[in-house]
This record gives sequence, structure tokens and C-alpha cells, in this order.
Amino acid sequence: MGRANERRTVLRIDVGSGSTRRVRRMDTISGEEPLEIRVGPAGAARRPPLAVTMRTPGNDIDLAIGFLLTEGLIGAAEDVVTAQLCAGTDTPNTYNVVDVTLAGHVPPPQTDPTRNFYTTSSCGVCGKASIDAVRTRSRFDVAADRATFSPQTLVGLPDQLRAAQQGFDRTGGLHAAGLFTADGQLRAVREDVGRHNAVDKLIGWAAREDLLPLRGHLLLVSGRASFELTQKAWMAGIPVLAAISAPSTLAVALAEEAGMTLVGFLRGSTMNVYAGTDRLTD
Amino acid sequence: MGRANERRTVLRIDVGSGSTRRVRRMDTISGEEPLEIRVGPAGAARRPPLAVTMRTPGNDIDLAIGFLLTEGLIGAAEDVVTAQLCAGTDTPNTYNVVDVTLAGHVPPPQTDPTRNFYTTSSCGVCGKASIDAVRTRSRFDVAADRATFSPQTLVGLPDQLRAAQQGFDRTGGLHAAGLFTADGQLRAVREDVGRHNAVDKLIGWAAREDLLPLRGHLLLVSGRASFELTQKAWMAGIPVLAAISAPSTLAVALAEEAGMTLVGFLRGSTMNVYAGTDRLTD
Repeated sequence: MGRANERRTVLRIDVGSGSTRRVRRMDTISGEEPLEIRVGPAGAARRPPLAVTMRTPGNDIDLAIGFLLTEGLIGAAEDVVTAQLCAGTDTPNTYNVVDVTLAGHVPPPQTDPTRNFYTTSSCGVCGKASIDAVRTRSRFDVAADRATFSPQTLVGLPDQLRAAQQGFDRTGGLHAAGLFTADGQLRAVREDVGRHNAVDKLIGWAAREDLLPLRGHLLLVSGRASFELTQKAWMAGIPVLAAISAPSTLAVALAEEAGMTLVGFLRGSTMNVYAGTDRLTD
Repeated sequence: MGRANERRTVLRIDVGSGSTRRVRRMDTISGEEPLEIRVGPAGAARRPPLAVTMRTPGNDIDLAIGFLLTEGLIGAAEDVVTAQLCAGTDTPNTYNVVDVTLAGHVPPPQTDPTRNFYTTSSCGVCGKASIDAVRTRSRFDVAADRATFSPQTLVGLPDQLRAAQQGFDRTGGLHAAGLFTADGQLRAVREDVGRHNAVDKLIGWAAREDLLPLRGHLLLVSGRASFELTQKAWMAGIPVLAAISAPSTLAVALAEEAGMTLVGFLRGSTMNVYAGTDRLTD
């Protein structure tokens, strides 16, 4: 089974202070393996592969559920009857396949070539073979969510997220997504080599815990705020997306359209607010 | 036409030193827009959309060529007869479509649902709806490339890359990929909201300049070294991939298989070498 990380010997080179030093030492490396998501109705002889994402093994069922949700294929965890690792009989059990059975009322995904979708290590929503297919529509009205957030609370969140990043501590190289309440309580954190996977794992977990829509919550991501991460937050009904790094133009535009609050460069004692400033208290 | 960046007013909040300060000020935000890549033979009535990537507008033809190359769809720039922005007549000219005409000898891409591919803001290779389809095969034997690189030279590259990142200077949020010679000369740098796009733009440029395979070169990326970035470097015949941040397990495994050198955590005076240590001189 895929592992969250792997220990191996690396060559450490230091050219500082005159002479070059070379030492062999142990290093912990973040796991990255493909996860194939197969989706179909109950009783299907074989469920076709829908997507492959390069992910850090772990929380794979949550990842699959979160992916289907943020892609708009399902509306709630109840739309999935079963989801299990590698149920296929024609594949050696690598635990790199999640097999999802949809409830009878859920239309199967379109897989025609002009409307493909799939996921990748850091992108889900955009991977469609047509620009029209890029957008999904949230069933949640986040604009109506009037929860407010204190800037004093916000500046404390990156340290909380960082303290909860066990994988990063070991490897120095994992993205993280943290779900916080309006008063700054960390509800859950997920890590992955792919930032979109970290968010999907978080949202999939929340869906299975029946927490959707995530009213009054804030999603904090360790990197940038892209269009796709903004869309995933919207699909889960999260009114505030905050990022340690920069947003993109399309992330700002989507946040404005959705009535979300978008915070970027949340570092030290400062932040930039790109949309939805009215949710931030004085 | 899509813009590389956009100026807009943001709310800057600083909770430091007792009282919270709020100022409205101008900020420059990295452009992010979808680019649809359409591919087909000459004379086709309509070329089907093959992929959509969320990218920073600019160098779009290079991006399309680089994507097709690193996906293994074409072997050289000559395999493309024409590539132009938005030649379609059924679309308003958004300049968000690249239309590619393949030479007669190039087989058209497979677009059946079980072997999809496409790209995203930060991932190309892995986005296939089957694990078997994740891998592409390079036609270049990078293992035979016996160029050597001095650690003293390597530690100077991140500063060179950073100095060339004009987009990052403006926005604080863009990935970069830089192509260097073995003696540390920067040949080209490309930036994008998606790190895979930055690499594809670089490789597409190199292909159009007839520089492939990029023997004796080093690719430096501003973030982590994933499986997909390693594969892209291999597809372009680049023997050394260096990253400012961490590699993943699959990146290390692929570098070993390909006979590439993989350097991670290239920061300050130090680096970790995960594969191909023999290319680094004492």
C-alpha cells in the first residue's frame, strides 16, 4: 500500500565556508502515487476510470468524495452508496484505486471526449476539455452567510495550521488545507503533495461528517489561492478562503461573483483582502 | 486578450502594534485564465478541444507546443504545422484558444474516455483517466548525458532565477522555471500561476528554437519537484532537475529510472541530491 512518506539516504552538499562538505544522511520524502477514481451505478459490471490524481496516500476515500463533490458530480455524501479502495478484480490490489458506487438517483458522470474531467496533483476543476466545462455551480448560497471574522483571529491561523502539519515537519514539502471556525478553532487539517487534493480530502471528510454547507467557516491554504481552490470552497459552502500566498485574477473574480471573502498574503500581522471585505470586523 | 497581471484596489489590514490599521491600496494580481488547446490534422473541419489549462496569459503557443511535447503527442516542433491563437470561427476571439495543426505523419491524439488527457494549472502528465496512462516515454536517453555540474555553480542559480522573475516582483505569486547551462548561464525563464505551465512554456520555447534534446542543461523550478515535472524534464532531454523545495517519492523513483540527477532544497549554500549524484563534481 502507498505510504505517506518514505525514508531514504540522500547526499547533502554544503558549499558554505570555503570547502565543500558532502555527507550522506537519512531524509524523509513525501509520498506521491497515482489514485484512480472509478465511478458508476450499483450493479455495473465494471466502473470506468473517471480520474487519476497524483496524491499522497492516505484519506483516499475522503479525497474521492471531496473530488466528486467539488466537481459537482454529487451534492452530498449520501449520493455515494459505497466507496472502497481497489474493489476491482482485474487489478492487483495496489490500494491506488477507489471504486465509487453512486446512488440510483445520481446521474453517472459524462465521459465523452469533449467534456472530460479528471483531477491531478494540484488541480481538479479546470481539467476539462472545454472552457465552458471549467465552471461548476455551487448549490450553496455563500453570499447569504453573514458570519464575521476578526483580523486579530485571522493572523493567528497560519501558526495553528503550521503546528498541525505533521507531514510537513517530516518532509519539508507538503501542501496543507485547514478548516477553521469563525472564532479561530482548527477543526481539521489535511496535507498532500497536491494542494487541490488537500482541500478535497478536507471537504470529503466534512461531507462524510454531514457538515456541509460549511457555514461560518474559513478555509486556510498554505500556498496560493487559485480559481480552482476558490471554486472548491464555494462548492462546500465555505464563505471565507484565506491563503498564505497570492491570489490570481480569476480567484478574485469568482470570489466576488460568489459573495465570498478572499484573503491573501496572510502573513505576520498583515493580510490583503481581495473580496468580501464586509465579513472582516474592525 | 488575457493579461499577465491586473492592478486593483485591495484592503490591507495590519493588526500589529496594538490598533488595527486598514488602508486601501493598489495591488498587482497574477493573471489566470483558461487556455483551451485544440489539436487535429490539416484540413479538419473542426479540431476537438484536447485540454484546458488554467494559465497566466502569455507565451501561449510555447505552452501548447511544450504541453504536446511533454505529453508525448509530438516529438519535435516540426510535428506541428501551425499553432495559432483562436483560429476558431465559432468562438468569440478571447485569445484563450490555441489551435494546433499536426503534420500529416503525426497520429492524432486519442480522446477516448478511458485514455483522456489534458492539462491543468499545475499538472499535465498525470491527468489521465487510467493509471497505465500516467506514464509517457522519453525518446531521449538522458542517462547517456555525462555533463557535470559544480555544487558551487548550483547554489548561485536560485538568486539568478529570482532576479529574472519579473512577474513575481510585481505580484508576489508566480511559479518560475529557469533553464541553465552547466556553467550556470541562465538561458531562459518562464513564469506562470501553474508550475507545470511554466515548464511547458520553457520547453515549448526550446523546441521552437530547435534546442531539443537539452543536453548538458539544468532545469530549476521555484517550488517542489513532482513526478510530473521530472517527467517533463526527461521528455525534453534535460539531465538535471533542481528544485528550491522538496521532491516526492515518485519524482525520485522516476529520476533514478531515467538516469537523471534530482536536486532538492537548493537553498543558501546547501542542497540535497536524491538521484544521479555522479553528475555533481567535487
